Amino acid sequence: MIVVMAAHATQQQIEDVQKRIQDWGYGVHPIFGAERTVVGAVGVPEADKARYMESLEALPYVEQVIGILRPYKFASREFHPEGTVIDVKGVKIGGNQICLMAGPCTVETYEQTLESAKACKAAGATILRGGAYKPSTSPYSFQGHGVAALEILKDIADKLDMRVITEVMDPRNVELVCKYADILQIGTRNMQNYDLLREVGRCRTAVMVKRGMWAKIEEWLQAAEYVLLGGNKDVMLCERGIRTFETYTRNTLDLSAVPAIKELSHLPVVIDPSQGTGKRSLVIAMTKAAVAVGADGLLIEVHPHPDQALKDGAQSLTCENFADLVNDLKPIAAAVGRTL
Amino acid sequence: MIVVMAAHATQQQIEDVQKRIQDWGYGVHPIFGAERTVVGAVGVPEADKARYMESLEALPYVEQVIGILRPYKFASREFHPEGTVIDVKGVKIGGNQICLMAGPCTVETYEQTLESAKACKAAGATILRGGAYKPSTSPYSFQGHGVAALEILKDIADKLDMRVITEVMDPRNVELVCKYADILQIGTRNMQNYDLLREVGRCRTAVMVKRGMWAKIEEWLQAAEYVLLGGNKDVMLCERGIRTFETYTRNTLDLSAVPAIKELSHLPVVIDPSQGTGKRSLVIAMTKAAVAVGADGLLIEVHPHPDQALKDGAQSLTCENFADLVNDLKPIAAAVGRTL
Amino acid sequence: MIVVMAAHATQQQIEDVQKRIQDWGYGVHPIFGAERTVVGAVGVPEADKARYMESLEALPYVEQVIGILRPYKFASREFHPEGTVIDVKGVKIGGNQICLMAGPCTVETYEQTLESAKACKAAGATILRGGAYKPSTSPYSFQGHGVAALEILKDIADKLDMRVITEVMDPRNVELVCKYADILQIGTRNMQNYDLLREVGRCRTAVMVKRGMWAKIEEWLQAAEYVLLGGNKDVMLCERGIRTFETYTRNTLDLSAVPAIKELSHLPVVIDPSQGTGKRSLVIAMTKAAVAVGADGLLIEVHPHPDQALKDGAQSLTCENFADLVNDLKPIAAAVGRTL
Amino acid sequence: MIVVMAAHATQQQIEDVQKRIQDWGYGVHPIFGAERTVVGAVGVPEADKARYMESLEALPYVEQVIGILRPYKFASREFHPEGTVIDVKGVKIGGNQICLMAGPCTVETYEQTLESAKACKAAGATILRGGAYKPSTSPYSFQGHGVAALEILKDIADKLDMRVITEVMDPRNVELVCKYADILQIGTRNMQNYDLLREVGRCRTAVMVKRGMWAKIEEWLQAAEYVLLGGNKDVMLCERGIRTFETYTRNTLDLSAVPAIKELSHLPVVIDPSQGTGKRSLVIAMTKAAVAVGADGLLIEVHPHPDQALKDGAQSLTCENFADLVNDLKPIAAAVGRTL
Repeated sequence: MIVVMAAHATQQQIEDVQKRIQDWGYGVHPIFGAERTVVGAVGVPEADKARYMESLEALPYVEQVIGILRPYKFASREFHPEGTVIDVKGVKIGGNQICLMAGPCTVETYEQTLESAKACKAAGATILRGGAYKPSTSPYSFQGHGVAALEILKDIADKLDMRVITEVMDPRNVELVCKYADILQIGTRNMQNYDLLREVGRCRTAVMVKRGMWAKIEEWLQAAEYVLLGGNKDVMLCERGIRTFETYTRNTLDLSAVPAIKELSHLPVVIDPSQGTGKRSLVIAMTKAAVAVGADGLLIEVHPHPDQALKDGAQSLTCENFADLVNDLKPIAAAVGRTL
Repeated sequence: MIVVMAAHATQQQIEDVQKRIQDWGYGVHPIFGAERTVVGAVGVPEADKARYMESLEALPYVEQVIGILRPYKFASREFHPEGTVIDVKGVKIGGNQICLMAGPCTVETYEQTLESAKACKAAGATILRGGAYKPSTSPYSFQGHGVAALEILKDIADKLDMRVITEVMDPRNVELVCKYADILQIGTRNMQNYDLLREVGRCRTAVMVKRGMWAKIEEWLQAAEYVLLGGNKDVMLCERGIRTFETYTRNTLDLSAVPAIKELSHLPVVIDPSQGTGKRSLVIAMTKAAVAVGADGLLIEVHPHPDQALKDGAQSLTCENFADLVNDLKPIAAAVGRTL
Repeated sequence: MIVVMAAHATQQQIEDVQKRIQDWGYGVHPIFGAERTVVGAVGVPEADKARYMESLEALPYVEQVIGILRPYKFASREFHPEGTVIDVKGVKIGGNQICLMAGPCTVETYEQTLESAKACKAAGATILRGGAYKPSTSPYSFQGHGVAALEILKDIADKLDMRVITEVMDPRNVELVCKYADILQIGTRNMQNYDLLREVGRCRTAVMVKRGMWAKIEEWLQAAEYVLLGGNKDVMLCERGIRTFETYTRNTLDLSAVPAIKELSHLPVVIDPSQGTGKRSLVIAMTKAAVAVGADGLLIEVHPHPDQALKDGAQSLTCENFADLVNDLKPIAAAVGRTL
Repeated sequence: MIVVMAAHATQQQIEDVQKRIQDWGYGVHPIFGAERTVVGAVGVPEADKARYMESLEALPYVEQVIGILRPYKFASREFHPEGTVIDVKGVKIGGNQICLMAGPCTVETYEQTLESAKACKAAGATILRGGAYKPSTSPYSFQGHGVAALEILKDIADKLDMRVITEVMDPRNVELVCKYADILQIGTRNMQNYDLLREVGRCRTAVMVKRGMWAKIEEWLQAAEYVLLGGNKDVMLCERGIRTFETYTRNTLDLSAVPAIKELSHLPVVIDPSQGTGKRSLVIAMTKAAVAVGADGLLIEVHPHPDQALKDGAQSLTCENFADLVNDLKPIAAAVGRTL
């Protein structure tokens, strides 16, 4: 931690900062430049750093305090140099094979879900996605069929030997959803819903933490850290687009997050091109790019009849689109040393 | 709702869109331009609009669907032309008098909270703020003293005849927090935590919905609509800064949201300059601007000893700062026809 | 153009809007909904639309005016359904072969440029990039060697049978730079420098319009329209990252701009992963993604000794990096039906 | 300058970094932490810092390089502790009196400009604004009447004893515009048009540097530094809204930039609420806030008949609006110790 003293800081004030750091039990290394004095603090543990930084920043004679270390530990690659491979009842995420997660945005009916799931499975998907609890910006939009949808998902997934990923929004539902789901999805709006993160950290079902549409990569990894700290090691990340000034696309899908996460963390990274772009025509191109950039998995909305979908039809692929796309992805995966 | 057909749309496809709208039971008004055909749909109720818009957007021969009406009803000024005044046990928010809400970022100890509360009260604050449950980006940061903090808040507020505002993060805690708080604060990270919004919509304690740091004004009003739909009419909004590319300030405090909300909605608007700027020196100037721009209330962090604060010391005013500031605000309030 | 009347608009005000549109000589189609009246205007030519929209928006009884048509013509795919292929003295941009543009960020010395150019050429680059005039945020940073650098670029490119792309910043230098360059680059900071755009629109050297780091896709295409309107048909676009709240990467490289532009426009699109990410380790992964997503060209910084570079060493590939990368790109290009 | 070594950096690599810094002639202070080594460099002059930082960042064993000093000198308050007061032929900007700059967005006709100017003057404006060269996103929008407009501006300003502020976009026009204008405005799109900044730095007419809609405060001050380095000391800044995800307002007017600039710099700051909000109804409230927050000047669009304006009618005040607003501003100015 580096404390930059204000330009006008007096000798006494510089000593005050040093004394505070020493009183907390840490080493102190001042550097006296021509225009600024900088005080390095050595030995501050992660668990105390935030508090001490804030305390020093409150002093009027401190210009800024800079944290040198990444503000997460269990999520960092330094802590776990090998990439993590998550095993979801035999389906691997983070290994050489890119994991295909596909299905309808929302579970509407048994038939619609089955039709979508069969097509996804036939094309190579091993994990069935489908919304039971839907976070909708408008309170007048469809909010999901809840438990009835969970039952449909599990029944169909069991029949087709697929795994289930579905979103959980309410900490009171975590236990319930765990009965049906193999992966709990934390949606973008809940990336900093800490009670929910703590709750899924306590269970032993795998968790996908989607990036908040406003979240820096560092904050996203801190959200994962909340889950890891609870003892749940099976955490994967999912980039689904961030919010920018651009309005032609629904979000701006930040593919550079994949290699960035690979540098900073050992956790697998999945790309959601459906939410990330909001337009079917863009989903296809961006999925190819996602494979090329090194994603460990893909989360794609597939609907047998997008124009009859209750939600997000404009970004859903048809079953045919999806099958064609998977075929097109295979040589790209091979080109980057992966399989599909 | 206006459906813009794709440039290449055929006569048959234009008719298909019209038929779909008519089959749903609504009126249809096509306009045939030289380069685009546009189909107006008349009579679509708010509760169904989102679904129908998404359905039409899924068609490859539709370029875009534009909603003409605002996607909220109870929050709109059209629905309730007079500005709402919320009465919190005699303290008014939204009336002629600007409501001062102040206190420590976090309830640390009884003494610290009491010292801050007394100073705030003496300067004119009627509502005591203080964090019991703290949403912290880092899992290693202080997370609040929970119920112990709630008890301190209520005890001190009762003694000083103040009201209590405090954040609730977990839907499981809403009932509990209602026992201590007069206003439930929904924090920026939880603006789209719909289970929480529904839960506070069910209770009859006043609610402050802080703007998500990523949220458009329209989405913020839709979040308020979730609460209003639950039957809770005592909803106020709080602008606390949005996330932009600027890094010198912690957030970019969007004061234009105040007159914008006043046009669109009848709900009172509070400004939080502490979170909004993150720097004590900026808090003072921005609070003055908040009064001038027409804010109905101010939410300000005051700490007797900011450099000893457990959180956010750099943005906390001292008790003296706060007293001086309130004095400086009075003539500005008078200049815009308000009292403090 | 669709005029949404305010909720409180009277019959007389609705008629006033209709009369204004008719007086301008255009057709009028009102739609009377339950809560809003909407007036469609038919036949408004692009060249007048902006003015009329602004005029109606100034009326207090108009809520908003929505343009239905894209605000550009010559840049649109509707105007020119086939994709444009630009021929730069035999080197094609926009055809089946992906065009490799590479070289140093800045022309420092003859030797450094030659070493970089030879390596780029050997790996397959046909266009040599190199900065002669450098736009630097800091006035204290290196600003480029100007004409001396242009002479180095041209001399080396001629020897190696490469074409030259270099940035022009000042309209007074356009004629001069045209003597040395085969493609004039308009940098991100100058995307809305209209005098410069008009000036390069007048010449007959090909132009690359980089996206402003703040620019919506629509505005970027309007910038290209400025050049096209001048009669210069050889316009290509270059996505080089937009500015977001993320600070880990230098910019957020928006790869979805490629398929988006392919829908909206016939102009070729190039990706600059060096500026787009700012980190060597990310450049490599994002270049692969750029090929997969359908880019027509790549603009990559290559420096023989990045740690001795005068600018942007951290994002420059070494000559070996670049050769390896091109090899890795070939099967990805093949997978999307392109050659390198 | 602080160099953070990578976690995996060897002793030899740490020594290499130290040697490089010493070879450049600067002092070196390493701090060996448990997880990272940090090397402080002392004595690096501003003029060389950017280059050296980039050079070290290019090394694979360096994690990041942090500049401690602000990357501008002449614009900084450290360099010039007193606030600068610019004297434009007797009209002061930066002093106790808030300077009112008003007039039409665009000079359309002599009569329209005269009518606006008279009303502005009567209400207290001392500087006449008006566009002669208009930067328009669309090439089909009105681009300004050029020299004819400059002549109108100067003639009217002379008659009414006002000063003229107008935008210059093209470095080739700087000399010409100086004949008519008392303040040269650098528009938001040209904030990083360095040839233009250098050109206005060479002349001795006052310059207003508007903030780029994408620009951090630090970059804005660096743009001012370009002008100051040319020897032109009469530089003022103008906040006119930054680009965010919000679409209800045209831009997000960042009022916190005023106190931020006051901390960092001695240059006067003007607020443009017309461009900053894009809506007449918001202009009025935000102008009041601008005065309260400490702005040194206001730049406001006033049009006698906004619905007939060639540009930006929706954000123009009428003459009556403006007169009323100025009256309303007076007590707010008094409340913050200023006059109008």
